[in-house]
Amino acid sequence: MTTLKGSCIIGQSGGPTAVINASALGAIQTALQSENITRVFGAANGIEGVLNERLYDMGLEDPAELELLKSTPASALGSCRYKMADPAVDDTDYKRLLEVFKKYDVRYFFYNGGNDSMDTCNKISKFMQQSGYECRVIGIPKTIDNDLFGTDHCPGFGSAAKFIATSCMEVQKDLCVYEKGRVTIVEIMGRHAGWLAASASLATWAGAGPDLVYLPEINFNLDEFLEDVQRIYNEQGKCMVAVSEGIHYADGRFVAETGDKDVFGHSQLGGLGVMLAEIVKNKLGIKVRSIELSLLQRCASHVASQTDIDEAWAAGKAAVDAALAGQTDKMVAFERSYDAQGNYLCSTKLIGLTDVANVEKNVPRAWINARGNGMNREFIDYALPLIQGNATVVTENSLPRFAKLKKILAK
Amino acid sequence: MTTLKGSCIIGQSGGPTAVINASALGAIQTALQSENITRVFGAANGIEGVLNERLYDMGLEDPAELELLKSTPASALGSCRYKMADPAVDDTDYKRLLEVFKKYDVRYFFYNGGNDSMDTCNKISKFMQQSGYECRVIGIPKTIDNDLFGTDHCPGFGSAAKFIATSCMEVQKDLCVYEKGRVTIVEIMGRHAGWLAASASLATWAGAGPDLVYLPEINFNLDEFLEDVQRIYNEQGKCMVAVSEGIHYADGRFVAETGDKDVFGHSQLGGLGVMLAEIVKNKLGIKVRSIELSLLQRCASHVASQTDIDEAWAAGKAAVDAALAGQTDKMVAFERSYDAQGNYLCSTKLIGLTDVANVEKNVPRAWINARGNGMNREFIDYALPLIQGNATVVTENSLPRFAKLKKILAK
Repeated sequence: MTTLKGSCIIGQSGGPTAVINASALGAIQTALQSENITRVFGAANGIEGVLNERLYDMGLEDPAELELLKSTPASALGSCRYKMADPAVDDTDYKRLLEVFKKYDVRYFFYNGGNDSMDTCNKISKFMQQSGYECRVIGIPKTIDNDLFGTDHCPGFGSAAKFIATSCMEVQKDLCVYEKGRVTIVEIMGRHAGWLAASASLATWAGAGPDLVYLPEINFNLDEFLEDVQRIYNEQGKCMVAVSEGIHYADGRFVAETGDKDVFGHSQLGGLGVMLAEIVKNKLGIKVRSIELSLLQRCASHVASQTDIDEAWAAGKAAVDAALAGQTDKMVAFERSYDAQGNYLCSTKLIGLTDVANVEKNVPRAWINARGNGMNREFIDYALPLIQGNATVVTENSLPRFAKLKKILAK
Repeated sequence: MTTLKGSCIIGQSGGPTAVINASALGAIQTALQSENITRVFGAANGIEGVLNERLYDMGLEDPAELELLKSTPASALGSCRYKMADPAVDDTDYKRLLEVFKKYDVRYFFYNGGNDSMDTCNKISKFMQQSGYECRVIGIPKTIDNDLFGTDHCPGFGSAAKFIATSCMEVQKDLCVYEKGRVTIVEIMGRHAGWLAASASLATWAGAGPDLVYLPEINFNLDEFLEDVQRIYNEQGKCMVAVSEGIHYADGRFVAETGDKDVFGHSQLGGLGVMLAEIVKNKLGIKVRSIELSLLQRCASHVASQTDIDEAWAAGKAAVDAALAGQTDKMVAFERSYDAQGNYLCSTKLIGLTDVANVEKNVPRAWINARGNGMNREFIDYALPLIQGNATVVTENSLPRFAKLKKILAK
C-alpha cells in the first residue's frame, strides 16, 4: 500500500435512485475522515462539473444536513447525460479532465452510476494511467435496473423493488373492490433487464399482486399474452398485468419503440402500457386501464428499503477505503452470503472496471416460469432480502425533509 | 331517544380510498359493542350486496384482523358502481331492499361513500320513511376528491393529499438532477373539484414541488398555460406542472374529454397529461414528460395520514352512535376548530342527507392565486393539518400486511 496524498472528487451520474445519495454520503463521510484526502469535492452534474470546473467543497457542508442525504432521493450533486468520446478518436475531454485533476491535485476519483457511467469511469482511469498521472479511480454501482455485471445486486434496486411491490399490492386491493373488474396493466421501468418488473411478483407472493409478469428476457408473443389475459379474466373477472417497458418481439423490436434515440444511442420507448391496453380493448373487448409507475419508482425514498440504504452507504465507503488502500481501476460490487441460520449477509468486493463496463446482467431464465409470464421462487428468494427494513424518513410537518446542501464552489 | 333493536348493515360505495376501511372499522367495532344492534352485516359490494342478499356476518371475524382494516386500502367489503333508479319512476330496487331489511330485521343502515352514494343513501332513507318501516339511515362521508358539501373535509382526502405532496416532492428532486431539464406534467385526479391537484402545492410550500398548479375551478386557457410554462422554463431551465384531470375550457368542455360516459352520466376523461405534453412539445419545442399518479393516489395506504385514519374511524363510530341515539336521514360531517394554541381540532356533526346529496364543494376562488396557476396560503393552512401523522403500517417481510377477512355470508 502506497500512501497517496491529494484531493478527491465524488460524482453522480445517470438516472437517480432513492439511495444514490446514501452512496455519495458513504464516500464523502469516509473521505472527510481520511488524513490522506486533503479536500473532498462533489462534482456538479457528474463529469460535466469536472470538465467545467464546478466542484462543490463538501468540507464546508453542515454534517447534519449531509446526514439527511440518507433519505433524500435523486442526485443531490446533480447528474448528467454527457457521453464521453472514445479517447482514441477524440481525447479533448480527457485532456481537460487531466488539467482539472492537476489543478485541484485530484488523486482520487469516485464515480457513482450504472453501465454507461462505469464505461466513462473505465475510460478516465485508463487515460490517467496512460498519461502517467497517478489517480485512483473507483466506480460505485448504482441503478434501479439492477443490471450491472459482477455484483449480486445494485444499490437502488432494493428500494425501487419495494416501491413497486408495495404499490402493486395497494393497486391490486383497489382492483378487487368491484364485482366485475377489468384488466389493469402496470408498466414498469427496465429497458433490457426485467429485474424491476419481476419485483412486482413480490406483491403476488405477499398475497396481492399481478397475475401475469412479462420481462424483456423473454421474447414477447402478443397472441400468448392475449390468451393469458383472456383466460385469467374468464376465471377471475379481472386480471392484473405487470410489464417491463423493454419487452420486445422475437426479432428484437421493442413493443413500445418510438423510433427516437438518446445520446447514448439507446432507443426511446414510450407508452407501452397504453399501447397494450388499446390492444386488449380492441382484440378482447374487455375494459382495461394502464398505470405507468414512471419516475416514482426511482425516487420514492419515503418507502425505501433500509437494507438498500445501508448497503448503498457501505458501497460509497468501500470505494474510498479501497482507493486509500491503493486500489484503482475497480468497481465496488456486492457479494451475498447466508449465515448458519440462513440470514442474508452482504459484503463488498472489487471487480475490474473493464470487466463491468457495458455488460448487462439479465434475470436468469430459470427464475422465470416456463410460460414466460411469471416468476419462480428463486427470484423471490433473491429479491426479498433486498427490500427488508422500513427506512426512517426524516419529516417536517409530516412531509419529507430533504438535505439542503450549501453547494459552495471550490476556488 | 327511542330504543330500536335490530341488526345493521354497513356498506362501502364508490371509488376506494386509503382509509375507507378505517370508517368501516369504526362503524363495525361500535356496532358490535352495542346492546341494541343484534347483528352486524357488511354488504358485499355496497348496495348490490343488499339487493342480492350477500351480507357478511362481521361478528364472525377475528377482531385482530378487523383491526388491520386501519391500514388496508380499498373497500374491504367490496364496492359498486350501481345506479339506483329514481323511486318515483321505478321503485323495484327499493321494494327489494325493504324485503331484505325486513328479512334480516335491519334497523340501521350505514353507507360510506361520496356524492352519488349520499344520493343513494338519501333515496333509501326517504323510501323507508314513506313505507313506514323504521330504519335509521346515516351516511358516512368518503372521497379523496374532498368535494362533499357541509363537511370541512372528507375522510380519504388527507391521505391522498399526503401521497400527492410526498410524491411531487420526490419527483421534483428527480427533475433537478440534470443541468438542462424539461417540462414535467403531473396529472392528478379530480373531475370537478381541484382539491387533490391543489395538494401538490403542499410540496411547493415544503420546498420541492410544482411551479404551476391548474384546477377545474378556473377555466383553462391554453395560451396562458403555454405562456406560463415557457416563462418558467426560460427562468429555471425546467418546469413542473400539476394539473387536475378535470380542467376544462370556458365553454365547459373538459380538456381531456373522450366522448364516453359512465353509468352515472359522467363524462369519461383520459390522458390529459399526455395530451398537454404533446401540446407543449409541438408548440414550445421543449422536451416534456407526463406522469399520471393514477390509482396510486387513492390507495397508497403505506403513506397515509394518521389524522385521516383517526378521523375516518371516528366518522364511522359517530354514524353508529348517532343512529343509536335516534338520528336518521343524516350524514356525518367534520367541523374544524383550533384550540387556544392554534392547534387543529376536528369534531363530528350531522347534516341532512337531502342537503348534501349531489352538491359539490369546490376550492374557494380566494384560495387560488390571481393568475389561476397556483395556490394561496389559505389552502396550505387548510390542508396541512389533514396530512399530519405518519401512519404505522403493519408489515410482514417489510411489505404491507392487509386484513384478511373471512367474509362469511349470513344465512
